[in-house]
Amino acid sequence: MEGVNPPGTTLLVQDFIRWLREDSPFGDLTSELLIPKGVRVRAVVIAKSEAIAACVEDLAEALNALGVRVTKLVPSGTPLKPRDVVMELVGEARKLLLVERTLLNLVKYLFGVATTTRTFVEEARRANPRVRVAATRKVIPGLRYLAKKAVRAGGGDTHRFSLSDGVIIKDNHLAVIGDVSRAVKLAREGVSFMHRVDVEVQSLEDAIKAAEAGADVVMLDNMTPEQVREVVEELRRRGLRDRVIVEVSGGITPENLREYASLDVDVISTSYITMNPVRVDVSLEFVEVVRGP
Amino acid sequence: MEGVNPPGTTLLVQDFIRWLREDSPFGDLTSELLIPKGVRVRAVVIAKSEAIAACVEDLAEALNALGVRVTKLVPSGTPLKPRDVVMELVGEARKLLLVERTLLNLVKYLFGVATTTRTFVEEARRANPRVRVAATRKVIPGLRYLAKKAVRAGGGDTHRFSLSDGVIIKDNHLAVIGDVSRAVKLAREGVSFMHRVDVEVQSLEDAIKAAEAGADVVMLDNMTPEQVREVVEELRRRGLRDRVIVEVSGGITPENLREYASLDVDVISTSYITMNPVRVDVSLEFVEVVRGP
Amino acid sequence: MEGVNPPGTTLLVQDFIRWLREDSPFGDLTSELLIPKGVRVRAVVIAKSEAIAACVEDLAEALNALGVRVTKLVPSGTPLKPRDVVMELVGEARKLLLVERTLLNLVKYLFGVATTTRTFVEEARRANPRVRVAATRKVIPGLRYLAKKAVRAGGGDTHRFSLSDGVIIKDNHLAVIGDVSRAVKLAREGVSFMHRVDVEVQSLEDAIKAAEAGADVVMLDNMTPEQVREVVEELRRRGLRDRVIVEVSGGITPENLREYASLDVDVISTSYITMNPVRVDVSLEFVEVVRGP
Amino acid sequence: MEGVNPPGTTLLVQDFIRWLREDSPFGDLTSELLIPKGVRVRAVVIAKSEAIAACVEDLAEALNALGVRVTKLVPSGTPLKPRDVVMELVGEARKLLLVERTLLNLVKYLFGVATTTRTFVEEARRANPRVRVAATRKVIPGLRYLAKKAVRAGGGDTHRFSLSDGVIIKDNHLAVIGDVSRAVKLAREGVSFMHRVDVEVQSLEDAIKAAEAGADVVMLDNMTPEQVREVVEELRRRGLRDRVIVEVSGGITPENLREYASLDVDVISTSYITMNPVRVDVSLEFVEVVRGP
Amino acid sequence: MEGVNPPGTTLLVQDFIRWLREDSPFGDLTSELLIPKGVRVRAVVIAKSEAIAACVEDLAEALNALGVRVTKLVPSGTPLKPRDVVMELVGEARKLLLVERTLLNLVKYLFGVATTTRTFVEEARRANPRVRVAATRKVIPGLRYLAKKAVRAGGGDTHRFSLSDGVIIKDNHLAVIGDVSRAVKLAREGVSFMHRVDVEVQSLEDAIKAAEAGADVVMLDNMTPEQVREVVEELRRRGLRDRVIVEVSGGITPENLREYASLDVDVISTSYITMNPVRVDVSLEFVEVVRGP
Amino acid sequence: MEGVNPPGTTLLVQDFIRWLREDSPFGDLTSELLIPKGVRVRAVVIAKSEAIAACVEDLAEALNALGVRVTKLVPSGTPLKPRDVVMELVGEARKLLLVERTLLNLVKYLFGVATTTRTFVEEARRANPRVRVAATRKVIPGLRYLAKKAVRAGGGDTHRFSLSDGVIIKDNHLAVIGDVSRAVKLAREGVSFMHRVDVEVQSLEDAIKAAEAGADVVMLDNMTPEQVREVVEELRRRGLRDRVIVEVSGGITPENLREYASLDVDVISTSYITMNPVRVDVSLEFVEVVRGP
Repeated sequence: MEGVNPPGTTLLVQDFIRWLREDSPFGDLTSELLIPKGVRVRAVVIAKSEAIAACVEDLAEALNALGVRVTKLVPSGTPLKPRDVVMELVGEARKLLLVERTLLNLVKYLFGVATTTRTFVEEARRANPRVRVAATRKVIPGLRYLAKKAVRAGGGDTHRFSLSDGVIIKDNHLAVIGDVSRAVKLAREGVSFMHRVDVEVQSLEDAIKAAEAGADVVMLDNMTPEQVREVVEELRRRGLRDRVIVEVSGGITPENLREYASLDVDVISTSYITMNPVRVDVSLEFVEVVRGP
Repeated sequence: MEGVNPPGTTLLVQDFIRWLREDSPFGDLTSELLIPKGVRVRAVVIAKSEAIAACVEDLAEALNALGVRVTKLVPSGTPLKPRDVVMELVGEARKLLLVERTLLNLVKYLFGVATTTRTFVEEARRANPRVRVAATRKVIPGLRYLAKKAVRAGGGDTHRFSLSDGVIIKDNHLAVIGDVSRAVKLAREGVSFMHRVDVEVQSLEDAIKAAEAGADVVMLDNMTPEQVREVVEELRRRGLRDRVIVEVSGGITPENLREYASLDVDVISTSYITMNPVRVDVSLEFVEVVRGP
Repeated sequence: MEGVNPPGTTLLVQDFIRWLREDSPFGDLTSELLIPKGVRVRAVVIAKSEAIAACVEDLAEALNALGVRVTKLVPSGTPLKPRDVVMELVGEARKLLLVERTLLNLVKYLFGVATTTRTFVEEARRANPRVRVAATRKVIPGLRYLAKKAVRAGGGDTHRFSLSDGVIIKDNHLAVIGDVSRAVKLAREGVSFMHRVDVEVQSLEDAIKAAEAGADVVMLDNMTPEQVREVVEELRRRGLRDRVIVEVSGGITPENLREYASLDVDVISTSYITMNPVRVDVSLEFVEVVRGP
Repeated sequence: MEGVNPPGTTLLVQDFIRWLREDSPFGDLTSELLIPKGVRVRAVVIAKSEAIAACVEDLAEALNALGVRVTKLVPSGTPLKPRDVVMELVGEARKLLLVERTLLNLVKYLFGVATTTRTFVEEARRANPRVRVAATRKVIPGLRYLAKKAVRAGGGDTHRFSLSDGVIIKDNHLAVIGDVSRAVKLAREGVSFMHRVDVEVQSLEDAIKAAEAGADVVMLDNMTPEQVREVVEELRRRGLRDRVIVEVSGGITPENLREYASLDVDVISTSYITMNPVRVDVSLEFVEVVRGP
Repeated sequence: MEGVNPPGTTLLVQDFIRWLREDSPFGDLTSELLIPKGVRVRAVVIAKSEAIAACVEDLAEALNALGVRVTKLVPSGTPLKPRDVVMELVGEARKLLLVERTLLNLVKYLFGVATTTRTFVEEARRANPRVRVAATRKVIPGLRYLAKKAVRAGGGDTHRFSLSDGVIIKDNHLAVIGDVSRAVKLAREGVSFMHRVDVEVQSLEDAIKAAEAGADVVMLDNMTPEQVREVVEELRRRGLRDRVIVEVSGGITPENLREYASLDVDVISTSYITMNPVRVDVSLEFVEVVRGP
Repeated sequence: MEGVNPPGTTLLVQDFIRWLREDSPFGDLTSELLIPKGVRVRAVVIAKSEAIAACVEDLAEALNALGVRVTKLVPSGTPLKPRDVVMELVGEARKLLLVERTLLNLVKYLFGVATTTRTFVEEARRANPRVRVAATRKVIPGLRYLAKKAVRAGGGDTHRFSLSDGVIIKDNHLAVIGDVSRAVKLAREGVSFMHRVDVEVQSLEDAIKAAEAGADVVMLDNMTPEQVREVVEELRRRGLRDRVIVEVSGGITPENLREYASLDVDVISTSYITMNPVRVDVSLEFVEVVRGP
């Protein structure tokens, strides 16, 4: 457990302030009436269930910029047991009460994401040590950056962050443009050499077409394990297996994860880890009053 | 199913634009390469699981302000079956692809909240037709307004929206101020006649003190059903039961909900409905190209 | 007179920066030409008329976040005489000149609100020690939070902060919905148990209807003292007086305030204190140059 | 009375949206419960006291961008009598109720500024048809643009908008730099040829120094009419009167305005018109329901 | 030349509004005094030098959202001669004068970028039809999205948009981490399968190390053509040439571009096209008044 | 070379944060993977070509607010030779890498503006020591404040900052209003005494009309040196030369600058200095690691 949170205004602080204003558009009625100005306390954020820590450094830097000093923190990625201290905070009692709920809501969601990711990664690695578990763009709006970081803290792959950092050709694109091969060629030609081309396919034929047209990634969407195996074999037969990354996606659950992982695939992507993370419990407790009013 | 979405810029549209920028800081690489400018399509948002609709009118107004015309929608509160159409949209194919993920992420979360709320409300009402199921402030930061509206669409009570619209005295306040009676008196005196005073208590003694000191609401926190019953009886014995609203909170789950509801309580508040909503599946499908490039 | 202003970025600072940018979109021409960079001064904000201080701590925290150190301040609520020091500031001369006008404009308005509120409260209390003087939502846009705080510093009641923290049924609502009783019932049923229902009425009949339908507050709008007395008596006759808060509003002036206060009413609400506050004079004076260029 | 408000998003609309969010961070509880979605009404904004209209076109354009159609308006600068219609609006009842308070608060303040300005201008012009009445930078933060426009609507001179569009050398500058002549020279040299140099002086000596050093404007601060006369005579004696604009400022009230105006001065500047405008009464009334739910 | 600009609020409009506020914090003094409200005009944006059009559709959509109707436009990528019409606009004269300068400033810069890019691309392709000319992150802050689009309109490759969509290991990273091979391995392992790894090297040794460690791109920084040839040969000798993209960067000018392009390299990246674009002249001219005041 | 950068949040910091978010919407992939958290370095920003420093203090204050300590800096206006240190910075390695590109992009553009301005000013002053070289509003959107400051650092005149701080009557205004004399009179009457009136004219006749009608500045647009001489002589002949500032503008280049300067003109304004500044090279180099991870 290390100490400092670095000085200075983080990029996150502007979001944090917006969230605080959402939670207190006209101030904190209760604290302003009950807590004398000037009372300073030491407090801890405590895990109340098992969890993987995530985004702790980012949150600490934002708190610091808001005038709450973080005197201890567990690094992101650390596994926690109930009663483990996540952060130790010192500051005005009123300010701690102001940030409490926003901080805990973030921690609950982000630690949940990291924890579920870790579970998925470990389960998948048991079957296939090389396979990656990746997040999707199915993330609560406004939390993309933090949620993707939580995925990384859990050992997952962030995948594309947004529509701007990679091409993924999907069914609605094909509904307009028609042909997989032509779509891949157009994308290949137009996209920067720094960005990859991924193609979501529902059939063996389209998987082969995509690979032959030069896709970097072939995403097998909503296929059964049997169908996936068939596609991979056909790719290998045609000498294409090593030229593409094989990704499976759609309908991945804790139950079927290991079966998919045991196939010769490179990436398993799933919205489960960001949209249905396990419930993590945390609380913020005042430890002592360090200065009276 | 009605038609129009009203003209004009909604308050939500600024959040929606921020979320779109999050999802496309440098544009949508794929659509810009594959979809010719000028192609217009008709599309539908379709439920793929059972759900209660929520915030549909708000989302429609934001879409409209962004240049996507909503030609049909189901009113918030409507129960949906798989394949039911949530919205019908007409617009530029590129714009629909731009908003698709943000829209669906919101719909998944908000319909999930409404659906889980409805389930809780129905379960509670079976035991006690007068009891209210209320949300808490445990909501994903940035989505407070919409999530509370989704709670209402599911038949729930929104509870306090923020720290600014009611007093709730909690353990951390008492850690500083010490005494329940004094805290309630201070709050009562200082707070506007338009705002209520709620006190979270962990013991029979504090419940009585809070009620006697003039609290509007006594929130029994993490008590067993047996303890709750005891408090309510003591309140009645002292002639205080009708002067306060009795709220139970903490550890409410689908399993124990009915047992708490069957007691003489007014409100059951729970973060379960906003933090662990059921998984709702929706998709956006292109129905037809209404104008070529 | 105490010292420190707490470290850290306040919620107010973002508004303050916006106001500074309004007052200097391209910098401060005069100071950049005349004041050498690096000159630091000690300065005081001084009252030049009698006033009640308000929002001083908020302003101090914002100044601090902007790099102006507040070394002394009078607590909000303090009565001031001409030449009393409101704040002592130390900082770069250029920065003090940058914030001077924005700071003083806020102080003039907010101290004016607190001062007028205090005058009203004292006048009302002379006639009726239990009566509250409350503000309305008639406040300069953009200053709601601070103006309501200034009302509190003057001893007033903040009333509703916004459309989101309480129900008030007014004539334009009734123009659509028609009937007071039905309106109150709809509101009662739909609103959270944490929010109150206030009904603005123009007649004895509607006052009774509102109280019978379960309103928490009955606001007697633009009634003469005689009419108010009549309503209160009828409420008492029907056993409703103790079940509702009686608020009078509309046309309250310094001249008629005491007459209304002497009636059996709970709250007198008025826009006078926020829209026509007394003129308060303050200035910012350089005391000494503490470091040359 | 003309009709249209021009289409398109005005610059003001972003401020208006921020003010609406201030007034309804979580929606309008009352209207959402009482007013069925889809009900459209015709409404009028009506003057209830005498006033000069101001900023009406700006407000109309913002309303339009928010989905409220302005079908009639009185041009800014028009004198109004009680019961005169300021604007006629058509829109969703819910939306009109949402904007009502913010709109009226703006109208009250801005019409008040224009009205008081007009009174001052007429009073001053009776004594001296060439004299200008000018506003200062003492304006409620956040409303600078609109308040200055209201001054213009009342026939006043806007003076400097901010610290960035002209030099004004004041006592605090001189406290650092010492000498008026040197200050004016530094400013003159460094400032663009497009910007003017104004100097606030408290003595005859400094007035002469400022004029000799090349100031465009000499502002006689807090001088008695007798002192002003003396300065002007001395300027004339030295052949400087025609080379400078003479401004008087400080302590101007409705009572002494005419006396100052009757002197040979060019500009009388005063914060009275923006900080203590006359109370203007307006209301928004629903005229008819044009479409049911 | 096509017609419509699609309705709806673009993502760009918020930037455009911020830029307009920068150019008119207190309105347009001249137009407000000289141009009667309600005068509508038809105007054209006209090229006054040869240029490649860029970002025209984005600008048109923003103008539309601001209430200026774009009735004609040339598609981005079109080569223009002097007097060619870029856009035809219809709108309020005041609004056209308000947007004029901001629009033209953008057009000048963006068309300049596209034009210089086209010149570079054509020059490079003459020597090597497969080579790509790519932009860097050396772009005016605030204009990244538009400038990269202008590069694309000129036929260039956008390269990385930001620090978030690809890894580029540079000298300052190596100053901390020391070893190229280790750096590439760390990056390879940690980065998503959707993002590429580029390594900037100054020597033959590091180029080989980077390729062997699995870099996707080897960027030869500030090497002479002779050094580049040597690196490419060594890569080929070791069978690594086909496994990496070879990029040259640093000190590319119109003079030496063709020499670099004639080597066996894949990408030439240069800040010249975004930081020193050719001067493009455009103007906005009123064609006719379509409606009087 | 002085040391400190003053504490506190500058006005610029909000723009800087927006630019950083543009350059790293989802963080800095490379540094997060390669640079251990906690590593602190000392770095220098170094000139690599001759240049005039500009806006250094503003940038330093923004960096400081972001947690990067500026320990040395050269004052704006200083001439630099290659290898001169512009700033010395100490901070987290990750943070320095985060700000590097944005900082350097600003420095390159702003120093370029100052350098080109200085060259123009010196060239013009050789011919005419009283003449001013002024910028226009042709500046990259979003950088107006800084670019104008850079012009000042180079010894230039900032001219109007925006549409709000002075009147300039141009061809498009005259296309609507018709007559120069009438336009000047309208402007003169309506504009504040603090703001100047400048008129852009293309002919001798209009120049005379403008001067006679009371313009403060006559801007001779796109005239040959011979035409300019003729106008000035006619103004003198009519006794108007001393009553107006004579500005020449349009088509000023390094080649013809001296010829225009040698005429009896007061101001030469040109977009060349802000739109085509000389290329300035700078880099940020890590000097030492001051603390390990």
